[in-house]
Amino acid sequence: MKIGILTSGGDCPGINATIRGVSKAAINCYGMEVVGIHGGFQGLLDIDTEPLTSMSVSGLLTSGGTILGTSREKPFKKKATDEEKNERKRLITDNVKKMGLDAIVCIGGNGTQKSAYKLSKIGLNIVSIPKTIDNDVWGTDQTFGFDTAVGIATEAIDRLHSTASSHRRVMVIEVMGHKAGWIALHSGIAGGGDIILLPELDYDINTISRVIMDRFKKGHTHTIVVVAEGIKTMNGRKAGEFVAQQIEFETGIETRQTVLGYVQRGGSPSTYDRILATRMGAHAADLIARKDFGKMVCLRGDKISSISLEDVNDRLKLVTEDNDLVVQGRRIGICFGK
Amino acid sequence: MKIGILTSGGDCPGINATIRGVSKAAINCYGMEVVGIHGGFQGLLDIDTEPLTSMSVSGLLTSGGTILGTSREKPFKKKATDEEKNERKRLITDNVKKMGLDAIVCIGGNGTQKSAYKLSKIGLNIVSIPKTIDNDVWGTDQTFGFDTAVGIATEAIDRLHSTASSHRRVMVIEVMGHKAGWIALHSGIAGGGDIILLPELDYDINTISRVIMDRFKKGHTHTIVVVAEGIKTMNGRKAGEFVAQQIEFETGIETRQTVLGYVQRGGSPSTYDRILATRMGAHAADLIARKDFGKMVCLRGDKISSISLEDVNDRLKLVTEDNDLVVQGRRIGICFGK
Amino acid sequence: MKIGILTSGGDCPGINATIRGVSKAAINCYGMEVVGIHGGFQGLLDIDTEPLTSMSVSGLLTSGGTILGTSREKPFKKKATDEEKNERKRLITDNVKKMGLDAIVCIGGNGTQKSAYKLSKIGLNIVSIPKTIDNDVWGTDQTFGFDTAVGIATEAIDRLHSTASSHRRVMVIEVMGHKAGWIALHSGIAGGGDIILLPELDYDINTISRVIMDRFKKGHTHTIVVVAEGIKTMNGRKAGEFVAQQIEFETGIETRQTVLGYVQRGGSPSTYDRILATRMGAHAADLIARKDFGKMVCLRGDKISSISLEDVNDRLKLVTEDNDLVVQGRRIGICFGK
Amino acid sequence: MKIGILTSGGDCPGINATIRGVSKAAINCYGMEVVGIHGGFQGLLDIDTEPLTSMSVSGLLTSGGTILGTSREKPFKKKATDEEKNERKRLITDNVKKMGLDAIVCIGGNGTQKSAYKLSKIGLNIVSIPKTIDNDVWGTDQTFGFDTAVGIATEAIDRLHSTASSHRRVMVIEVMGHKAGWIALHSGIAGGGDIILLPELDYDINTISRVIMDRFKKGHTHTIVVVAEGIKTMNGRKAGEFVAQQIEFETGIETRQTVLGYVQRGGSPSTYDRILATRMGAHAADLIARKDFGKMVCLRGDKISSISLEDVNDRLKLVTEDNDLVVQGRRIGICFGK
Repeated sequence: MKIGILTSGGDCPGINATIRGVSKAAINCYGMEVVGIHGGFQGLLDIDTEPLTSMSVSGLLTSGGTILGTSREKPFKKKATDEEKNERKRLITDNVKKMGLDAIVCIGGNGTQKSAYKLSKIGLNIVSIPKTIDNDVWGTDQTFGFDTAVGIATEAIDRLHSTASSHRRVMVIEVMGHKAGWIALHSGIAGGGDIILLPELDYDINTISRVIMDRFKKGHTHTIVVVAEGIKTMNGRKAGEFVAQQIEFETGIETRQTVLGYVQRGGSPSTYDRILATRMGAHAADLIARKDFGKMVCLRGDKISSISLEDVNDRLKLVTEDNDLVVQGRRIGICFGK
Repeated sequence: MKIGILTSGGDCPGINATIRGVSKAAINCYGMEVVGIHGGFQGLLDIDTEPLTSMSVSGLLTSGGTILGTSREKPFKKKATDEEKNERKRLITDNVKKMGLDAIVCIGGNGTQKSAYKLSKIGLNIVSIPKTIDNDVWGTDQTFGFDTAVGIATEAIDRLHSTASSHRRVMVIEVMGHKAGWIALHSGIAGGGDIILLPELDYDINTISRVIMDRFKKGHTHTIVVVAEGIKTMNGRKAGEFVAQQIEFETGIETRQTVLGYVQRGGSPSTYDRILATRMGAHAADLIARKDFGKMVCLRGDKISSISLEDVNDRLKLVTEDNDLVVQGRRIGICFGK
Repeated sequence: MKIGILTSGGDCPGINATIRGVSKAAINCYGMEVVGIHGGFQGLLDIDTEPLTSMSVSGLLTSGGTILGTSREKPFKKKATDEEKNERKRLITDNVKKMGLDAIVCIGGNGTQKSAYKLSKIGLNIVSIPKTIDNDVWGTDQTFGFDTAVGIATEAIDRLHSTASSHRRVMVIEVMGHKAGWIALHSGIAGGGDIILLPELDYDINTISRVIMDRFKKGHTHTIVVVAEGIKTMNGRKAGEFVAQQIEFETGIETRQTVLGYVQRGGSPSTYDRILATRMGAHAADLIARKDFGKMVCLRGDKISSISLEDVNDRLKLVTEDNDLVVQGRRIGICFGK
Repeated sequence: MKIGILTSGGDCPGINATIRGVSKAAINCYGMEVVGIHGGFQGLLDIDTEPLTSMSVSGLLTSGGTILGTSREKPFKKKATDEEKNERKRLITDNVKKMGLDAIVCIGGNGTQKSAYKLSKIGLNIVSIPKTIDNDVWGTDQTFGFDTAVGIATEAIDRLHSTASSHRRVMVIEVMGHKAGWIALHSGIAGGGDIILLPELDYDINTISRVIMDRFKKGHTHTIVVVAEGIKTMNGRKAGEFVAQQIEFETGIETRQTVLGYVQRGGSPSTYDRILATRMGAHAADLIARKDFGKMVCLRGDKISSISLEDVNDRLKLVTEDNDLVVQGRRIGICFGK
C-alpha cells in the first residue's frame, strides 16, 4: 500500500510530529510506502512529492512548521463552473493514479476538512487530521497546536504583569483564535487575566470600565485584559487597539496594548501537542490499514477516535456560555465582558 | 461559613494556584471566610494558621511550591493504640471547633487522600483535591503537577538528544513517578525516547540490547532510554544506574545515565496545570457551599466533578498494557521493554 | 548611615535584583539602614517610602518589574521658571532631610541619569545605576535588562522561522530599542536574521528587495527581516509595518510583520542580567560607603566600576558602523540595509 | 583556498553555530571551499569528511551538539614511542595533503587546544576556537557553551527554591565545571544560592553548618547550597552527595541533593552563546584569510581577538579569591565555604 501526506492552511506546532507519527506507524506497523506531497493541495495538482522513510522523519517530533510546506490553494475553487470542476476532478483523480496512491492523509484546519470531504466525495480514499492553534474544528475535544499557542500567550501575559504592575497600568493583550475564543479563554485563565473578551460572548465597555475602576479602588496595582482577535469592534478596528482606547477613554487610567501576532503559531510543540500529534498520526495509519476512509481523526476524552468527514463539514466549535471554564472563571472573579 | 485549607505530602507545581482558586471562589462567590493551615496536618494539631484574603492570594497562580508549607505528618499514626487514636480524634475535633472551621480542604497525594478519608469518617466536613506530579491518584483523569513535570522531563530529554547524537551514545534518563510510569510514558513519547521502561510493564535487558544494536546498524546515531524510578532492579539498585550498566555490558556501546531528580517538582506550573488547579480549587468551594462533603474533586474528560473519598481510598492509578499511549507508542516503534 | 533607593522611567527585568543587591550589601556589609522610595522621583516629592530589610528583599532576584513602582515624573520640569525650580530644590532638600537620608541610589535609564546629575548638582549625595532594555546609556558596556530583552526577541524570531519557512514568506519583526539598534542587532544575529535594520545605519529598500529576491532564487525558503522601532520611515509610519509593505510592493513576495511590543520588558531576568544587576547593586553600596558620590555604576570589560554623572549626562550610546557585530555580521552575509 | 573544520572533546551548545560562522564567512567573504571532518581528530586519521556549503550550514545556529560528531581521540597518544609519533605525524601530514586542506579549524576545549598546538608545531596551518561549558580555557574571557550551561543550572536552582521552601529543607545541587568553579559561581549567584562551593576555594563543613543554622534561626525557610563537581571530598565521594550528608549530619536539618548531569551540555545555545560562537567562527575565517596561523580565537572585553596557541597550551583558567563575583558575592552575604 502506498499513501500520501499533505499539509494545508496556516502552519501550527505539531504538524511535523504528525507527519512523523503517520509515517512511522505506516512503515513500522503496516509496511506501507509513504510520500509527502508538497505545498498542500497544490502538490496534488503539480505531482510535487518526496519519499518519506523511517530515517527521514526521525527528529521531526520537536520541530515547528511543516517540512512539506503549505498553501491556501483549494482543490476546488468556489466560483468554478461545473465544467471547470469536472476538469479538476479528472486531473486530481489522474494524478493520484499516476502517483500510485491508495490513500491520502490531509492535515489541516476547517478549510482543509472541507476540501478533504470534497475529495472523499469524488471517490478518493481520504483520512484527515485536524490541525489548528484556534481549536475550532468540530468533532474533536482538542486540536494539536492549541496547547502550544496557549502556552506562548500565557507566557506573554506573565511578562505583562510585571510591567503593568510597575506602572499601575491597564494592559490589553490581543491573542489569536480566528472567530473562536479558545486561546483567549485558556491563556486568560492561565495567565491570571482579570477581564477576558471572547467573540462568542457580548461585552459592554461600561461594565468593563467599572470592573477596572473597582479593582484600582480595592488596591490592585494593575489590570490585565485578554482580548480575542475575533471580538466585535466598531468600524472594522483591530480588537486590542479598540478595547484599549475605549478603556482609557472611559476610565482615564493609562492603558497600553500588545498584539501577540505570529509568534503564537511557531516553534517547537509543547509536550501535550507532541503526544497528541503523534497519536493522531498513528491512528490515521490504523484507519487506512483497515480501509476506514472518509474520516477525520479526533480526540474524545483520553481516547483517539474518528468521526465522519460529513459530520465535520461546515461546522465550527465555539465557546459557549455554559462552558466549564467560563462558569468556573466567573466564580473566581473573572469578568467576561458583562 | 469559615473554611480551612491545608497542603500535605510532597510539593508539586500548582498547589498555590489551587489555594488561590479555592479562596477566590469561596470569598467572591459565597462570601466565606478562609484560613490557611500551616505545615499540613501538623497545623491542625498545633492550630497554626493565617487568614487568606482575595488580595493575599493574588499572584499565587504562577508560583511553585506551597505558601502554606507542607509536612509528611499524618493525623493518625499507623502504629498508634486505640487510646492514642481516640485522643488524637478529640484533639483534632476540638481544634477544628476552636478555629471555628465549618469545612477543611485537604490538598495532597495518595497519602493525603487516605488521611482525608479518616478525618471524614470521624465526622469532619472534608473536601479533598488530588495533587501529585506522579498522576497516580485513583478516580481522576489527571492531577495537576503532572503536566509540568512531564514538560520538565521532556525538555531534559530534548537536551540529551544532542549530546547522545554527537557522541554516538546510549543515554539513559531516570525520571520520577513513584510506583507509576506516567511521567516516563508521557515524557518518553514527547521527548522521542526509543525505549521506555515502566514499573507496570516487565522488561528484558536482552530485548532492549537487541533493539539498541539494531538501531545503530540501521544508521541511527544514538538511542534514548527513558526509565521510571520505580522499575524493578536487582539488589535494590537505582533504576537509571542499573539499566545503563546492563546496557553497556550487553552491547559494548558507551552508555551514560542522568537522574533528573527534584527539578521535576519545582517551579512555575504549566498553563495546563494552572487551569486544572484553578478549576479544581473553584469546584472545592462549590462542593462546600452545597455541603457535599467526603468527596475528592476530580477531572473526568473535560469536566470537573467529584468522587467519594471512600472510593479513592487505598487505590492507585497505574499504567496498563492496553493504555492508548502504550498501544500507539508501539505502533510508531517504541520498545516498552519486551 | 541611612540610604534611599528609587526606580524611575520604564521598567525592565533586573530592577528588583538591583534593589536586593544594594540592600543586601548595604545591610550585611556596612550596617546601613535602607528605605525604598515609591514611584520614582514622585516619592521624593511626597515622602512615600517603605523600609527594606534583608528578609524583605529576599526572593527579589528572579522577579520582573520593580516592587517600588516607577513613574516618568522628573524632579525638575523642563519648562519650569527659575522660581519654580528653586522651590522644587528646597522641597526635595527638605524632604531628604526629613527622611534622614545620607545618600540616594537612583536606578533608571537616560532620563533618570540626567535627573540624578541635577540632584547631585544641588548638593545631594547621589549614586546612580543604569537600567534599560535599550542598552543605550553612555559609559557602561552593558545595562541589565538588555540581555533578557534580546533573549525574548530571539525566541520570537526562532518561532517566526518555522512559519516563514512553511509559507515561503518574508517575515518582518519590529523590536524595541528606542533610538538605538542594540536589541535589533543582537537578536537579529542570535535569531539568524537575514536583514537587520538599525536606526544608526541608513537602509535602501531596493537593496533589501534585491537581497530577498536573490535568496529565493538560491533556494532559501524564507527571509527574516529584523527591524528596530527607531529606524527612519516615511510619514511617521511604524517601522515594521512600513518595511513589510515596501518589501511586498517591491518583490511581490508575501510579507507579514509582527510587532513584539511590551513582552520585551517584562518577566524574570536572564542569568546574565541577574548577575549584572546584583553586582551593580553591591557596587553602589560600596560607593556610598566610601562617600564617592555623583557617580554612575558601570560595567567595563568584566569589572564593575563607576563613571562621573557629568560625563554620562546628555549622551547616548549608539551602534556604529565599525561595531564588531556589524563588521562580523556582514562577513557571514547579513545585510544591514545597504 | 580549502579549509577543514573539526570538533573534538565533549559537546557543548554553540558548536554548530561556530561551524556555520566559519563556513559562512569563509565562503561569502573569502570564496574558500569548506569541508567538515567527522568525529574529531579521528576523521583526520580516517579521511572521513563532508563538504559544507552556505545552504548546508543554514539552520545550524540554533541546534545543539555537533553535526560533525566528536570523539576524545587525540592525534598523538601520550604513551606513544617516538617512532609511533613520527608515523602519526607522517599519516596526518599526508592525509591533509590528500584532502587538499590549506588550513584546519579545530573547535574544542583544553585537550583540543593542546592537540591543536601539537599539529601546529608539526607544520600544519591551524586556527583553533575554544569551546567548553566549563569556561576554563586560558586566554579568553569566556567560552561559548558556558552561558547556556549557567542558564540551565540557574533554572534548575530556581525550581529547587520552591521545593526547599515548602519542605523547609537544605537543598544541595551539584553542577558541572570539571576542575573549575565557573558554572557553580555564576549559577549560584544568578540562582540566589546561599552557599557556593568551588574547587578553587577551600571549604569547612563547620562554617557551612553554622551559616545554615543561623539562617533558619533568622526565619529563612530554606537554604540552597550550590556545589561544583570538582570540589575536594573524602574517599573519592561525589561532591553533592558528600556535602549533603555532612550538612545533614552536622545540622540535623533535612537535606536533599540533586546532580544536574548531562542536561547542562545539551540543547539550543543561549542568545549570548549564539552570538559569541558566530563571531568566533567568523574571526577564524579572517585569521586563515590573512594566514595568521597557530592562533586560538578569543574574547577580550567586547572584542574578538586571538592568542598564540603556545600561550594557551597546558594552562587552565580558574576562579581566584579576588574574582569580582566572589568579592561582590561575599558583600551580599553569600558564603563561599569559609
